[in-house]
Amino acid sequence: MHTPFEIHKPNPLLIVISGPSGVGKDSVLQRMKERGLPFHFVVTATTRPKRENEMDGKDYWFVTKDRFAEMIEKNELIEYAIVYGDYKGIPKSEVRQALESGKDVVMRIDVQGAESVHKLVPEALLIFITCEGEDELERRLRVRRTETDDSLSLRIATARKELQRIEAFDYVIVNQDFHLDDTVDKVRAIIDTEHLRVKQRKVEL
Amino acid sequence: MHTPFEIHKPNPLLIVISGPSGVGKDSVLQRMKERGLPFHFVVTATTRPKRENEMDGKDYWFVTKDRFAEMIEKNELIEYAIVYGDYKGIPKSEVRQALESGKDVVMRIDVQGAESVHKLVPEALLIFITCEGEDELERRLRVRRTETDDSLSLRIATARKELQRIEAFDYVIVNQDFHLDDTVDKVRAIIDTEHLRVKQRKVEL
Repeated sequence: MHTPFEIHKPNPLLIVISGPSGVGKDSVLQRMKERGLPFHFVVTATTRPKRENEMDGKDYWFVTKDRFAEMIEKNELIEYAIVYGDYKGIPKSEVRQALESGKDVVMRIDVQGAESVHKLVPEALLIFITCEGEDELERRLRVRRTETDDSLSLRIATARKELQRIEAFDYVIVNQDFHLDDTVDKVRAIIDTEHLRVKQRKVEL
Repeated sequence: MHTPFEIHKPNPLLIVISGPSGVGKDSVLQRMKERGLPFHFVVTATTRPKRENEMDGKDYWFVTKDRFAEMIEKNELIEYAIVYGDYKGIPKSEVRQALESGKDVVMRIDVQGAESVHKLVPEALLIFITCEGEDELERRLRVRRTETDDSLSLRIATARKELQRIEAFDYVIVNQDFHLDDTVDKVRAIIDTEHLRVKQRKVEL
């Protein structure tokens, strides 16, 4: 039985930060790292070529397509997706090691990927990042546009669709423009609070 | 359906702060008030005589035994208990009014009372305050002793028993000696976080 005095060593959490593209998931993760929060940030494996300023094992695990195919076949990935022709995926081994060391694990995944994780690890903690409204989302996607109009309208349509998938998530945070630290504070509060639950999540992977 | 943009006006919460006697529930509530946290703090009704420094409607609602009996009969109380021969109870009307105004409502109740509230209002948020261990609890009860030895051992036995009732609660906070503000921060984080839930509690009273 759970007694009040066992709670000093809470179970580590598997935290998924997700949301439509354009809401600022990467900025949230970036700020969490800058603030030195005591989490293990998962490094994604990818088949895309390493850019000059990137480091293997820090920005991504850069792997060949053959190696990636092997990871898929051997069921070594929590989830994977094809992003603009390149494969990206999250190695189970990394997550497992971090959890075993007692650290909370944070990963950033798109909405569809988050739903896959939810099915595979029902005890994962799912946080949905959104912005103030659909118009604002469209504005942000327009501002950051690097693609053709076609691709933009596709991104907008996808984002709108993804906003409807929120029901599978535990928490939702509105990431307001110029309030990145507020968003990070909220993520932090959610994680701290989950560790105070009497019935704690038990992640099995 | 709940869409991401409805979340700006979260449902008000009914928050129960409970735990064995000796863990410092009153100090926690006191500090929350001092810090001006934006909650409605429920005022308990009591039949005990008003002391000189007390104010009706602030410290307690001071009512006659006849009035209290009427409140019981008319089902006007969320819960009530006899404490050292005096009746104490929480008026539903006060809680209802605060919730209607959109405020989160905080009340401090003993463990048994918290369980009654849980049955009456399953969507109430139950926080269990405890201390570092049974020995520490006994030490605190000894330090604050105002009663005979008999009464002390009874209090210790009751407190030990109450420590086992934690399973009915949502969250547990270890209120460490000299770390009252940490405890209040945790209460605050729990409440803030509950407002970020996709599936929010809907309190009906």
